Amino acid sequence: VKILLIGFGVVGQGFVELLRDKAQELAQRYHLRPVIVGVATRSQGTLFHPEGLNLSHLLDAAAAGGLRQYPDSEGVQRGEDIKTWIQRSEADVLIEASATNLETGQPALDYCMTAFEAEMHVILANKGPIALAYNELRAAAHMVKRVLRFEATVMAGTPSLALALDALAGSTVLEARGILNGTTNYILTQMHQGQPYPEALAEAQRLGYAETDPRGDVEGWDAAGKLLILAATVFETRLTMHDLQVTGITGITTQDIIDAKQAGECYKLIAHITPQGGSVQPVRLPLSDPLASVSNALNALTLKTDVMGDITLIGPGAGRRQTGFALLADLLVIHRTQAAALE
Amino acid sequence: VKILLIGFGVVGQGFVELLRDKAQELAQRYHLRPVIVGVATRSQGTLFHPEGLNLSHLLDAAAAGGLRQYPDSEGVQRGEDIKTWIQRSEADVLIEASATNLETGQPALDYCMTAFEAEMHVILANKGPIALAYNELRAAAHMVKRVLRFEATVMAGTPSLALALDALAGSTVLEARGILNGTTNYILTQMHQGQPYPEALAEAQRLGYAETDPRGDVEGWDAAGKLLILAATVFETRLTMHDLQVTGITGITTQDIIDAKQAGECYKLIAHITPQGGSVQPVRLPLSDPLASVSNALNALTLKTDVMGDITLIGPGAGRRQTGFALLADLLVIHRTQAAALE
Repeated sequence: VKILLIGFGVVGQGFVELLRDKAQELAQRYHLRPVIVGVATRSQGTLFHPEGLNLSHLLDAAAAGGLRQYPDSEGVQRGEDIKTWIQRSEADVLIEASATNLETGQPALDYCMTAFEAEMHVILANKGPIALAYNELRAAAHMVKRVLRFEATVMAGTPSLALALDALAGSTVLEARGILNGTTNYILTQMHQGQPYPEALAEAQRLGYAETDPRGDVEGWDAAGKLLILAATVFETRLTMHDLQVTGITGITTQDIIDAKQAGECYKLIAHITPQGGSVQPVRLPLSDPLASVSNALNALTLKTDVMGDITLIGPGAGRRQTGFALLADLLVIHRTQAAALE
Repeated sequence: VKILLIGFGVVGQGFVELLRDKAQELAQRYHLRPVIVGVATRSQGTLFHPEGLNLSHLLDAAAAGGLRQYPDSEGVQRGEDIKTWIQRSEADVLIEASATNLETGQPALDYCMTAFEAEMHVILANKGPIALAYNELRAAAHMVKRVLRFEATVMAGTPSLALALDALAGSTVLEARGILNGTTNYILTQMHQGQPYPEALAEAQRLGYAETDPRGDVEGWDAAGKLLILAATVFETRLTMHDLQVTGITGITTQDIIDAKQAGECYKLIAHITPQGGSVQPVRLPLSDPLASVSNALNALTLKTDVMGDITLIGPGAGRRQTGFALLADLLVIHRTQAAALE
């Protein structure tokens, strides 16, 4: 399986680390031998090798400042336009793991469409294209009989979308409610342990959960983007941010936390969605609520279904390898689908 | 898709109800048109119609005493030997939902092998064959390139096995721990609300959670059988009951419950498994433990994995439709696999 990777931040690097560390296991257990033939970033352009880039050299280059640090061995090609690079690659899978834009989904959306035109499968960690243009992507995939996967976009590698879309196929999801942002859940957990907000935020940034500009997380927009993805994919309904009431955690004071604790309750940033609309807002939960025990960077999602009632999934919602794992899981789904098609 | 169904108790009837009520949805959303061409039970023999039995008539017959009450319309055939009935059926899928035998797995195991010889896919709700002979079943399925599924055997329709085996493929599960028996969890929940054991058991039987002979549940053997299934399928290790320490809930007194409550704790029947062995035993948990809030007939399973840390799934672990749903989910997996193979 030949892979192109766009974006080489925390998630892309986590994925490449997993491929490097699990190469033997993937070959033996799943007969999967992934090869990264190209990596591209917005700031450092494209890198390509038709027989595969060296994974350790890629990780070393990232640690040393970026793709330009990758050694110039024989066969290495650089500096193409990204769309041309996709079209000429003859790769099987495009992985889009660049930074999310929830307003236009670009340029990732164009790259995905270019990949489908080149008859590639597409895996996204980037939330923008799925939140904004899921129907178009699905139609494009269907047209060329290729697979579209996007597990990393909700709850990192915790398989929330595989649960809702694959494992629970045959039931109808009526609504979904959960804790969908790891950064804010980490900050709230720390605040309940007595840390003031600025220190908790700084710690979340130090651990790699929060971005340098944390507004997308702490103002609730990241969780809201995930609700748009659930609406588009699970309810097959296109909602926009205007259909959601979004409040972040920046208004929660130390006194609010003290008051909640004295009442035997705790604050969680709860995301809730139905086919009609949804909300992201801080909610005081009694400690007996199952979501109250979901702490630090864990996330949780409860799906209310027609046949099965409530099904709850709890697991990591952030982290380098935990998000990179989602890309590997999607790659294995594509590999299984191909294997079935070849039988 | 032509289906044979062995066993027409609570689970088989729940499945047929779902097929009847969701016929339109299954056709529209998944292009799946399942037809039940045969049903067999140990006490009332086989029933067959090459063009499909009437689902409402089947459910009416079950309510009226069994398959013999099914009307004798044109094309209906009865009274074959079950193996001959499988061999002659020309069906696509065998569903084995008869009563579990955890000592021999028979006669279900022979029926599954006969189905593979006839190049059928096999879905099990019966725990015996998977707990005792998973490797043989998998090899037989592989030989004829057919699918073996068994979601109903652990946590009813809550997709614990789809999570561990499909969605988390690429990670390694190191151990598993959870609440795997709905009947005992229901009884313990009632006892914590002040009900004495005999009344709680009678209520569980009235609700269809517990069998007339409740020993398999309350002595821990049902949960232990599920641990053998997790060992065989997730760890790919064949363990036997001798590798497990099994204690049920029959020794828990009203005074034990009162003592636990006074200490801010609650009793749960906890099942735990590693590749080396496991246990089923009543454990006093603090109320802050996520498993403490899993009440009534809910089940829960926490998988400890190498890449993703702890992943927890909570959902119904018993119930007519909730278990029948597992068979429908497995049928949809087979349908998807076939669709991919035909592309």
